[in-house]
This record gives sequence, C-alpha cells and structure tokens, in this order.
Amino acid sequence: MIAVTPPSVMAARGLVEPVLRDAVARLDPLTARVAGYHLGWSDPAGGPVSSGGKALRPALTILSARAAGGSPERYLPAAAAVELVHAFSLLHDDIMDADRMRRHRPAAWTVFGCSAAILAGDVLLSLAGELLLDGDTPGHVRAARTLAVATRELVAGQALDLEFEQRSDVSLDECRQMATRKTGSLLACACSIGATAVDGPAPLIAALAAFGAEAGLAFQLTDDLLGIWGSPAMTGKPVLSDLRSRKKSLPVVAALTGGTAAGDRLALLMDGSEPLSEADLWEAARLVEEAGGRSWAETEAKHRLDAAERHLDAADMPPDVRAEFLDIAHFLASRGC
Amino acid sequence: MIAVTPPSVMAARGLVEPVLRDAVARLDPLTARVAGYHLGWSDPAGGPVSSGGKALRPALTILSARAAGGSPERYLPAAAAVELVHAFSLLHDDIMDADRMRRHRPAAWTVFGCSAAILAGDVLLSLAGELLLDGDTPGHVRAARTLAVATRELVAGQALDLEFEQRSDVSLDECRQMATRKTGSLLACACSIGATAVDGPAPLIAALAAFGAEAGLAFQLTDDLLGIWGSPAMTGKPVLSDLRSRKKSLPVVAALTGGTAAGDRLALLMDGSEPLSEADLWEAARLVEEAGGRSWAETEAKHRLDAAERHLDAADMPPDVRAEFLDIAHFLASRGC
Repeated sequence: MIAVTPPSVMAARGLVEPVLRDAVARLDPLTARVAGYHLGWSDPAGGPVSSGGKALRPALTILSARAAGGSPERYLPAAAAVELVHAFSLLHDDIMDADRMRRHRPAAWTVFGCSAAILAGDVLLSLAGELLLDGDTPGHVRAARTLAVATRELVAGQALDLEFEQRSDVSLDECRQMATRKTGSLLACACSIGATAVDGPAPLIAALAAFGAEAGLAFQLTDDLLGIWGSPAMTGKPVLSDLRSRKKSLPVVAALTGGTAAGDRLALLMDGSEPLSEADLWEAARLVEEAGGRSWAETEAKHRLDAAERHLDAADMPPDVRAEFLDIAHFLASRGC
Repeated sequence: MIAVTPPSVMAARGLVEPVLRDAVARLDPLTARVAGYHLGWSDPAGGPVSSGGKALRPALTILSARAAGGSPERYLPAAAAVELVHAFSLLHDDIMDADRMRRHRPAAWTVFGCSAAILAGDVLLSLAGELLLDGDTPGHVRAARTLAVATRELVAGQALDLEFEQRSDVSLDECRQMATRKTGSLLACACSIGATAVDGPAPLIAALAAFGAEAGLAFQLTDDLLGIWGSPAMTGKPVLSDLRSRKKSLPVVAALTGGTAAGDRLALLMDGSEPLSEADLWEAARLVEEAGGRSWAETEAKHRLDAAERHLDAADMPPDVRAEFLDIAHFLASRGC
C-alpha cells in the first residue's frame, strides 16, 4: 500500500533545513561534502541537487513542541538535532551492513570511502549535541541529555542486530527488544524532545515518548516486511537485501520460532554460512510467509499502532496536533521510511 | 629519550577510572566489552587484566580545575569525558588508518571487527556528552559545548590527515593546521575544560586552552618523530608504520618542502602508489633526516613548548599546579603518548 506523505512531514523539511544547513556549514569542507551528499543536498562533487527528501523525525519533534506550546527558535534546534543523529546512524549502519544503496542513491561510503563516511557520521553526532547546547535553556540541556540516552540505546540495538546475524537461537522477545532499542528509542526521542526543549510538562513528555516507542515498533515491523516484500523502487535498496544478509528481522524470527515445518526449513537456509542463491532467497521469502511470519508482523504492526494511539489519548494536546501525530504514525506503519 | 611518567598522570588514573567504569557500565554488554578492551581493562573475552595505562588528558583536566579551584565531583566528569572522546577517536582512527596495533595490543577492530569498533567509538563519544550533562551546572553545560567544538575540530583534522595521504602538494602550513586541529584541539580542551566545569574565570580558561594547543603541537611533532625513529617497543606500533602508509606527517612535509635534493628524492618515493619495500622505507627515513625534516621537527617541538610555557606564565594559578602542567608538557614533548 502506498501512503501519501503527510503535509506536516513536507512542511517540516522547509522549517528544519535552514537550521541543518547552518549546522553543516560549521564543518570542514571535506566532511561537509559527505554530509551534504548523505543529507540529499548535493551530488558527489558537491553540486546542488533538488532533493525530495522527507523530514519525518523533525516533523514529530515540531509536533511535540506544538503539543506543549513553544516557539520555533526553541524547538527547531531539537528537530535538527534528531535528524542529525538519524543521519549519523544511517551513515554508520550502511557501512556495517554493507548496504550499497540508500534512498535510491549509492550510499555515502561507496562514494567517498569508509573513512570519510565514518568521520561524517562522527561529526554529525557531535554536532547534534552542539546544536542543542547552543540553545542554553534548561529545556535544551534536558533535550541534549535525552538525545544522548537515545543514542546509547540506538547503538545497543544496532549491536544486537549485528550479533543476531551470527546467532541461530534468537527469540522473538529478544528481537522485539532489539527493535525497541534500535528504532523505537530515536522515534520516542523525536516525539518527546520538542516538548522537552520548550520545557513542557513531564506527563506529556512521557506520554509522547511512549507513543513514539510504539509507533517506532510499528514502523520497524513495516520496514522489515518491506525488506522482504517491498519493491526496490519503493525501498531504494536491492530486492531481498535483508534475507541476503541473513538479518534476523521480526517477521523472520517470528517464522523461525513459530514451531512450523516451514519455519524449520527456513532455519536450514538461514543457518548456513555460504551466500544464498537467488532461488534460495525467494524460497526463504516464501517460507517466512508460509510459517506465518508475514501475517504475524502485519498484525503486530496494527497492535503497536493501537497502543501508540492509546498513549496519545492519555496526553493533553490540541486536537489538530493529535490528528497530525496519528497521521504520521499511520504513514510510518504503512510506508516505512 | 625516555621520560618518567609524571606523578600527576599516574594519580589521575586512580581518580578518573571509577567515573569511567561507571559510565561504561551504562552500555549494553556487547559494546561495553569492546570499550573495556580498548580502555585496557579487560582481555578480548571480557576477563579483567591489570592495566598500566596512563591518564594523560584527565591529568591535564584535573590540573586545570585545580588552577581555578574546584571540587572533584565537579571536575571528574569533565576529566572522564575528555578521556572518552580520546578513546572514541583512537577506536575510529585505527580503523581508518588500518593500524593493527594500539598500546602494544591488537587494535580493537582487529579483535572484535570493524562494526563493533565503530559502534563502541560512537557510543563513547555520545557518553562523553551524557556524563557532562549529568552534572547539570552552567559550567558543565559550557564544558559539554567546549568538548563538542573540540570534537568537530578533531574530526576536521583527521579528515585532512587522510586527504593529505592522497596529495603530493601539502604545504608545511597546511600540515601544521591539520595537527593543530587533530591533536591540538583535544589537548587545548583537556587543559581548559576542568576550569570551565568549575566555573573558572574566562582569561584563565583562554590561557590554559592556548597552553594546551601549543603543548599539543609539541606532542604531535614528537609523535611524528617517534612514528619514524621510535622503537616499536616504545610506540607499540610496527616500525616505520607512518612512512608505510605515506602519512604526510610534520617532519616528512618539512623534508619534502625544504627545497633540498634529498627532499626531491623523498618525493619520488612518497608519490608512488605501490607498497613501499622495507629498503624503500629505510631509505625514506634516511632522506627525511638528510632533508632536514628531523632537525626541523625537533627544533619546532622546542619552540612550541616555549610558547606553551609563555601562555602558562600569563595565567594566574598556584605554583604547584603550574609546575605540574609544565612537567606534563615536557613529558608530552619527549615521550609522546
């Protein structure tokens, strides 16, 4: 199903991009070029390109500030900081996962080399904290701490994800925890850090973080489904790339641990160490479906979305902000980004 | 010349290590193991080892807090944060430079793989900011900003260092600027961030940062000399490793740009792209010396040390603190660490 990008996501891009460009302008020219390419602003030589990129996490941060009531100069640094941490994690993840494509373009490390991509990721992570500390209000300092904790969780999730590729005994619960840390933590942060930056009330911040964590899981489930059944035109990645790298994604682990004959046959394919043939990959995708991994993940994504909505109901905010939050959550759980 | 490690450096280790261990205990077990190995606390399996590591940067931070007068609970997080940023940069630099040895042990990436070492570096960088923000005083927030700016400079320096390996027209001034950013920035930060954390006076902070930047250059010059003429037993790295990777270190660039016949012969060796033979490496080292690169770097290190001392004279601090600062600066410029 193709979902339409919510208007608030498109609007967020226009709001946050000037802050991001100012931030990246602080970098040395070599690293700024890698960052500009990765952020979709320029070609490998540094020439400008018209980018159609979205700003999903900044949109959530702006909404969370609007839920608390706050001014743009207070919340835009937080929106930009979340996007910088997201950019850092993609730059480094693509190296670790050996993913050669990102958003329909060659991944930065394939263009500039691993060293340049590592350095660009490093400095974008550092820049995220620097942006928030420029704000210099108690809310910005708390926001910087929230972002640092989310980064620690994100790294823990990525470490588990990589470990799972080497293990054949990953439980569904372990896999869910990994996704909560890898994807849920930064989305929980994106959904709450705007309210934090504008000194919003603690119960609102907690409810928004819980909403973001659940929406993040729904998103990860959808992303995992697209990693198997999504078209390369949609995902911007090669077909079946997650199965190729034997990623223990949620639908795969649900299929492996469901106690079915198809799951057992899938385990034989996934446990090997030699590269999987194209025929093996299609067979693996079929087995994930036959073992119930696909329908489980689809149902689970709906459950997470319902849970997210309940957290939103518990929070006090203007109805239009609530509607836009839900709009983005449904977009996340249908399209993946 | 073998210098004795100053007592304040040995003492700093005992003071800062508990803070570092508490910080690393926040990490997931997988990443904590890589961090513990890299910090010299454990073997690859996570078993404890008796480490003889130094704490040079934390010692400078503690001195800078003592120069301003401040309590340990205020300055120890800053001392630990600087060490964490240093650890992050070594973890990632070893991957980029393909350095297989670090402090007489296999580099973390050779033990745990590149992905695990990238992640460990990422999270130590983030943890540094988190530690300072836990402090939650105006001084700690300013210290976190100082550290973020130093990190940005450090990344810029490393990006230039890598670019220079591909270029044959690096000027001595460019090379000096690279070293100022790569090495000077974090040492300037280490020498001033303690005073910042305890809300010391701005002129003291500026003088200490200037002292650290000059001492950092003296240190880099010495480190570059050791990278060519140091024994592996001293450096913990293979002999002639800097020349092997065609690193445009300060003595090499001084030799290349000095307008001598030896410098021209050196350029022929350094400009090639095929691996240098052992005979070529020894010939390159000889040519650096013949072209005056060695004596230039030795003299320049002394000049930087004199300049550092002048900055220290301009700052108001207890005489014992000043003496210990000088002690460490001379240690840095004689031994390298």
